[in-house]
Amino acid sequence: MTCKFYWISGSPFAWRVHLALEYKDIPYRSNLLKASEGELEAPEFLELNPHGRVPVLKDDDSVIYESIAILAYLDACYPEQPLLGTNPAETGFIWQRVHEIENYARNPLLRTAIAILNAEIIEKPDEAHELLDLCREQLDWIEGILSESRWIAGGSTSAADFVLYPVLKIFLRAMGKPVAKTIELSEIPFAEKWPKTAQWAAQIEKLKGYSNTYPPHW
Amino acid sequence: MTCKFYWISGSPFAWRVHLALEYKDIPYRSNLLKASEGELEAPEFLELNPHGRVPVLKDDDSVIYESIAILAYLDACYPEQPLLGTNPAETGFIWQRVHEIENYARNPLLRTAIAILNAEIIEKPDEAHELLDLCREQLDWIEGILSESRWIAGGSTSAADFVLYPVLKIFLRAMGKPVAKTIELSEIPFAEKWPKTAQWAAQIEKLKGYSNTYPPHW
Repeated sequence: MTCKFYWISGSPFAWRVHLALEYKDIPYRSNLLKASEGELEAPEFLELNPHGRVPVLKDDDSVIYESIAILAYLDACYPEQPLLGTNPAETGFIWQRVHEIENYARNPLLRTAIAILNAEIIEKPDEAHELLDLCREQLDWIEGILSESRWIAGGSTSAADFVLYPVLKIFLRAMGKPVAKTIELSEIPFAEKWPKTAQWAAQIEKLKGYSNTYPPHW
Repeated sequence: MTCKFYWISGSPFAWRVHLALEYKDIPYRSNLLKASEGELEAPEFLELNPHGRVPVLKDDDSVIYESIAILAYLDACYPEQPLLGTNPAETGFIWQRVHEIENYARNPLLRTAIAILNAEIIEKPDEAHELLDLCREQLDWIEGILSESRWIAGGSTSAADFVLYPVLKIFLRAMGKPVAKTIELSEIPFAEKWPKTAQWAAQIEKLKGYSNTYPPHW
């Protein structure tokens, strides 16, 4: 069985699944959609995911959407190179990290990235400051974790790494845009202020198959 | 091993875990904290969960926080009465529903409830309308699911039911407050407009041990 993976270039949510597919060496057929051509709103895609969003994974048994659900599904189908631990304590801790990222880190980092990419950040300096304070707090939290362990949820690569990494990369990409120069945070070289986090990102980029997941339009 | 469960009365997140503990008949010691007495900020609690939030579950092996992570942990420790499916397709689908609730339904319902309980809803009628439209949309989505299946993720009780139920109950409780009478949605008797959802809530309330989980201050 070869599953079919629907994604768009640069979606942090799809990227999570893409990393897992490559890391676990799962055979898949890539189906790269173009949001700009309305492919997320096409009836045949809405039939797969009524929310009109990627990622979607389709195989003989199932159609699954929601990035983190797909990670859980893949790990249940393909137990090799486990992403969700090998005992209850590991499993619980990985899920804790996944939901900490979802509930605390994801939104500030993605909202900041989107505000920069849409050049909204310069129009609302107060909101930008508030958002950046939240980002700094979350980056410090991540740096703290990575000062004590090699990966986000302990000594092994896990779902928590793949949940966080694309969110961070999109944030960093936005920070590199000219419009971001108007905001304070972009002045700080990232790897200087958050060295363990930069090192962890480099680790992920050395994983087998990583280059296949890199957003083609970047 | 008896685990220790830290909660506060009326926290939707803690309630999710409480429902699972009772449903799975897991021995636990209840540790009901009082937020009003600063117990969430007490150093000994912050040592368990640096975010200062409930639920927290502690046993000999682990301290876990984040409600959904605790559900996954409990299901891994106690496979009887499974909450996360018995095969990859079920597991994937349950996780999909859990994350759909988290990403689409949770925030509108909880934000509306909080705005009502804090009587903010009457001060910002435009925001209230926008929020209520989102709630209506999500309630319709839930009603659609429950028109086709007995539980949120198919034919069996699952983590998805316990993730959604407390969020809905807090929303409904807020809707019953006098201040909610000023907003349109509260005019509609819930069980008339969303009968399958009301029926599903009643089903949960008939589960063994449910009454032990009901917020004591309600």
